[in-house]
Amino acid sequence: MPERSADALVADALSGNRRALSRLLSRVEDGGQPACDVLAQLYRHTGSAHWIGITGAPGTGKSSLVAALARAYRAQGERVAILAVDPSSPYTGGAILGDRIRMADLSGDPGIFIRSMATRGALGGLADTTRDLARVFDACGFGIVLIETVGAGQNEVAVAQVAHTVVVVEAPGLGDDVQAIKAGILETADILVVNKSDLPGAANTVRALRTTIDTGHPALKTSWRHHGQLLTAEETPAPAHAPDEPAWVPMIVQTVATAHEGIDALTGHIHAHQSFLKNSQSHGTIERARIHTELLDKLRDRLLDRLLNALPASALDDAIDRVANREADPMTAVTTLIEQSSRTAAPPRPESVL
Amino acid sequence: MPERSADALVADALSGNRRALSRLLSRVEDGGQPACDVLAQLYRHTGSAHWIGITGAPGTGKSSLVAALARAYRAQGERVAILAVDPSSPYTGGAILGDRIRMADLSGDPGIFIRSMATRGALGGLADTTRDLARVFDACGFGIVLIETVGAGQNEVAVAQVAHTVVVVEAPGLGDDVQAIKAGILETADILVVNKSDLPGAANTVRALRTTIDTGHPALKTSWRHHGQLLTAEETPAPAHAPDEPAWVPMIVQTVATAHEGIDALTGHIHAHQSFLKNSQSHGTIERARIHTELLDKLRDRLLDRLLNALPASALDDAIDRVANREADPMTAVTTLIEQSSRTAAPPRPESVL
Repeated sequence: MPERSADALVADALSGNRRALSRLLSRVEDGGQPACDVLAQLYRHTGSAHWIGITGAPGTGKSSLVAALARAYRAQGERVAILAVDPSSPYTGGAILGDRIRMADLSGDPGIFIRSMATRGALGGLADTTRDLARVFDACGFGIVLIETVGAGQNEVAVAQVAHTVVVVEAPGLGDDVQAIKAGILETADILVVNKSDLPGAANTVRALRTTIDTGHPALKTSWRHHGQLLTAEETPAPAHAPDEPAWVPMIVQTVATAHEGIDALTGHIHAHQSFLKNSQSHGTIERARIHTELLDKLRDRLLDRLLNALPASALDDAIDRVANREADPMTAVTTLIEQSSRTAAPPRPESVL
Repeated sequence: MPERSADALVADALSGNRRALSRLLSRVEDGGQPACDVLAQLYRHTGSAHWIGITGAPGTGKSSLVAALARAYRAQGERVAILAVDPSSPYTGGAILGDRIRMADLSGDPGIFIRSMATRGALGGLADTTRDLARVFDACGFGIVLIETVGAGQNEVAVAQVAHTVVVVEAPGLGDDVQAIKAGILETADILVVNKSDLPGAANTVRALRTTIDTGHPALKTSWRHHGQLLTAEETPAPAHAPDEPAWVPMIVQTVATAHEGIDALTGHIHAHQSFLKNSQSHGTIERARIHTELLDKLRDRLLDRLLNALPASALDDAIDRVANREADPMTAVTTLIEQSSRTAAPPRPESVL
């Protein structure tokens, strides 16, 4: 079967054809120019969906929570996309299959689309692809995009941060030091869920999280605060992100996803965060800052590609040799490479005129 | 006092002057062209030190372990540099002061140099600065550079990975799920230390770590293995990193740093890892891969700087606006920016001739 043109595929997917959507997702995941072509066409249709990132350690019941959230949003009449991202850690590999099986009862519903992404590849690349796939769902009319990551390492956090609202899932029984261990992840959380709250120790986990937020969260800094409140500037002596505005303090929600307990409270809190983002004076600023970061990342990668293409084949290897042999330091080697490439890339070289 | 020339400062530091070393470190930490100048001069003197990264959650006794290691290496006649990196997480801030006090008894020794680095700044930038400071110590004759990170988040792991040997510190009482929680960090470990092994639960922590390594470590993949052994190709059905070579499987060492127990075993294991790296057929390959990554990172940053300088002041802001208003998708905006900059950077423009 011949490759369908980008135009036709995009038109079909936008009109609700699931098969076209599926092919579009694959084309975007495969990357390269074909991906750029469809993304360029889709982009103006994006911007209405709310992207929700869900991350947390294995064993916290993340996938049951995602399934419960999907059902709750379906009941509200939303179309829901689930993007399950597995950075294929050797320690977490395989988890995703079981999770998918648990979600099987959702998959007959035409208002739900589930996509797994079992990726290899670099940290930046993974978050980029996640963002591009979420854009496809966004353009195709899914009002809710749930981005679920398997695991709780640095890759997973980078992926979850692509979302507008980041939900970090905990469960009881992860020990007294939960607040310290999770330090790197807590900072990225807009909402903290203590799932499996029917298990003993749930209250302890909530208390540990609360203490950690009280003592260290950037939005609080110097003062003790109540939770789940939007603080005004007056109440917040040293807000971290905007001088004249209320700051968002992460909320803690207790759930039992398998029994659908606490899920409505969770969607309520997610909605509150969404409203906070939309109504915040700094909404435009946050959005522009995101775009700024993305443009700089893409510029870096593109410029590097162009440079490497402009260099003679052996130039980079030679530079590595010189640095390895201590004949040049890395920064000097970089300067030399850039000079070499601008010489090569300069207007018609003598040889090519002959 | 006038700024000393890079030449004089480097010469003094290389000859063992601690004050010059201290100023050199500040100059490198401050960055920019002055940092590049001294690094260019120092680089050919680097390459003899062994860099050891030490990371782990707060409460594992990391700083006591670093102090104990420093003493052990001093007893072996090595000069030891300690670089304490605090990515100033709001959750871990303040820890470093207490840690420094615990190390006070080391600071009278002229064979030890302790430097704290309380950094703001981006993920990549932090690891870059750490590497550059370690190079200063390396050039100035410190045979051992201990890179201690406070905390156990994504920043800390990125910093620890700058080192040749990465030691991840655990302690008993972090709960049954230690192996899962640490998944993101375990993968970077060459040696796992269970410190505070006099506390109850140490055996459980060791068992949990062992199980995790057995079931998931890349060097083992499909087979159950013994630990602390260099496996031959025949023994390892699916080695992750080199087809014809023994793979390194992380060792587990129990210590009580405050009582100096297990420290000699630890330095022994670090030495074994160092020998493994040196004698490995892929030693050159690993070294070249490191340099490759560093050169590409530096090229990306440099090229972006040049592009932004070549662009008209408002060009990037305009591009962000177009993307925010959905008039252009991010990749198209990037292509336009690159075209704009090459037009601007082109040989003498008409206006400048007038």
